[in-house]
Amino acid sequence: MIPTPYLLFLGDAPDQLAAKVAQGIKDWRPENAVGQLRLPGCGADVGLADTTLQQAWDAGARTLVIGVANRGGIISQAWKDVLIEALGMGFDLASGLHNLLRDENDLVAAAHVAGQTLHDVRIPSVAYPIANGIKRSGKRCLAIGTDCSVGKMYTGLAIDAEMRKRDMKSSFRPTGQTGILITGGGVPLDAVVADFMAGAVEYLTPDNDEDHWDHIEGQGSLYHVSYSGVTMALIHGGQPDALVLCHEPTRTHMRGLPTYDLPSLEDLRDTALPIARVANPNCEIVGISVNTQHLSEEEAAKYLADVEARMGLPTVDPFRHGAGRLVDALCAL
Amino acid sequence: MIPTPYLLFLGDAPDQLAAKVAQGIKDWRPENAVGQLRLPGCGADVGLADTTLQQAWDAGARTLVIGVANRGGIISQAWKDVLIEALGMGFDLASGLHNLLRDENDLVAAAHVAGQTLHDVRIPSVAYPIANGIKRSGKRCLAIGTDCSVGKMYTGLAIDAEMRKRDMKSSFRPTGQTGILITGGGVPLDAVVADFMAGAVEYLTPDNDEDHWDHIEGQGSLYHVSYSGVTMALIHGGQPDALVLCHEPTRTHMRGLPTYDLPSLEDLRDTALPIARVANPNCEIVGISVNTQHLSEEEAAKYLADVEARMGLPTVDPFRHGAGRLVDALCAL
Repeated sequence: MIPTPYLLFLGDAPDQLAAKVAQGIKDWRPENAVGQLRLPGCGADVGLADTTLQQAWDAGARTLVIGVANRGGIISQAWKDVLIEALGMGFDLASGLHNLLRDENDLVAAAHVAGQTLHDVRIPSVAYPIANGIKRSGKRCLAIGTDCSVGKMYTGLAIDAEMRKRDMKSSFRPTGQTGILITGGGVPLDAVVADFMAGAVEYLTPDNDEDHWDHIEGQGSLYHVSYSGVTMALIHGGQPDALVLCHEPTRTHMRGLPTYDLPSLEDLRDTALPIARVANPNCEIVGISVNTQHLSEEEAAKYLADVEARMGLPTVDPFRHGAGRLVDALCAL
Repeated sequence: MIPTPYLLFLGDAPDQLAAKVAQGIKDWRPENAVGQLRLPGCGADVGLADTTLQQAWDAGARTLVIGVANRGGIISQAWKDVLIEALGMGFDLASGLHNLLRDENDLVAAAHVAGQTLHDVRIPSVAYPIANGIKRSGKRCLAIGTDCSVGKMYTGLAIDAEMRKRDMKSSFRPTGQTGILITGGGVPLDAVVADFMAGAVEYLTPDNDEDHWDHIEGQGSLYHVSYSGVTMALIHGGQPDALVLCHEPTRTHMRGLPTYDLPSLEDLRDTALPIARVANPNCEIVGISVNTQHLSEEEAAKYLADVEARMGLPTVDPFRHGAGRLVDALCAL
């Protein structure tokens, strides 16, 4: 686990989109962020107080999280003075960038001298077991998509937030770098060695109270030929009790695969449910989460109503309308 | 690629089963093996001439292949003198053991001095790409199983051998360590990082002549929760034109998963074909390969006839009856 709370480093982010990791932390775990640190020329603002390293330290922050991604995912030389100063003061550093902290000699040396840890959340830090398939206690929900990047992480976080609001027992279980930085822990599943993928998901979602819900962050899609193996391992390692189908209705082809059409929600349902029932015979599809960001309010309402009528399942955009109906459906299981 | 031909090192194998890698090479690629080298007390014999390092070198051998597995997959101290002498003479070493050649300091030093290579075929040696899903020329066949270890590798090798006998263009494409040692190259898929699994299969089976068949070695099973993600990546990365269903009729539960029943061949067919058609809309199931080793000749004949009548597909045990009917079915596609 990464020590919390964090100071969010926005660096010289050219625009708001470049700071989406920091924004995710601020939106979903505001209690994990004491402030933001921006360099001259920074074009992003996640709505936290601008905070110096010393102020953040005094406020209890123990990790400086690189909440910015620049082109190519590299660690900019312009950031180095602040990063090295932070290590010297006793902060850990955490990053989800492709360019690893541990590959920067100056950061490695400064961390060594200071006795601090560099958290590269893209790299597994655990020797995960091979999955044993044994039934675990507690409840699990997995969001699966017609395509990659259709809102699976957002859906899981929104359901988790709604359950917490209702004082239910609930955990979000990240499987990608943004989710790991938001919560401070998880499994970077796309970087796990093939034989251990399903075992890593079992490790991530252990036995729990019978009324506790794990919301497992989805990855890829059963219909995305580049990443479908990762999705399969999530379904079989996660042994979910409930699936939420996720969709983005304006996508014209599978992400990055111009000759591949998206499946229908019916296709996804009919493919995923028998596969999920191999690991958990009681698995049900409880609802549909549609990312309507490219539709007007009116178009979105009509689209959601049409899908709900067609599929016979609660259909919402959790960003626009909240995840309440999905949580109602999970509670009714 | 591992330099061929090989000298097969059987070491102090306690019995024939311990030498099954060497036996596989001798059975499927006899032209790759100039002889066997046994230490005192060796209880295995793969039917090749006992050959010294010098005799093997003179016969053209350029790699000493560790064709024996002992308990725990370790590299025995008793083997070291021969291994180090071989390196000094100019042999490479190749091994599929869990205990890596590269983790033995004395072997690393001897290889360095001699300028030879240690081939640990369990470890990927290539930075595989992410799969792009683009349709490739040539034909591909993949064996998929109701469970792990039901004869998928054997089925692929037998179909490849039959095609070669008929002077067809055919390659066996290994995805596991035994297959890699047999042919001298391949992808150790279970050791590839999740995001690159399907890309590794694309890399393994590139564009080829339209009348060329790749026989991709299967791994795991869509119904085996520990490894199903690897199987999924094989199906979507391999974009097979043809699937062969593999089954072992006396198995009482999924291998290593005592509470999991095997799927029926109908279940496997109905699950696998729509998944395969995502990557290749023309994919067909062409036949069934049954491992009847635990059935009598009579029981086997009856079982195969029953399955063939039930499923309407050529159903054979390629070990007992050859792969001719499966090749006929592939030719008829």
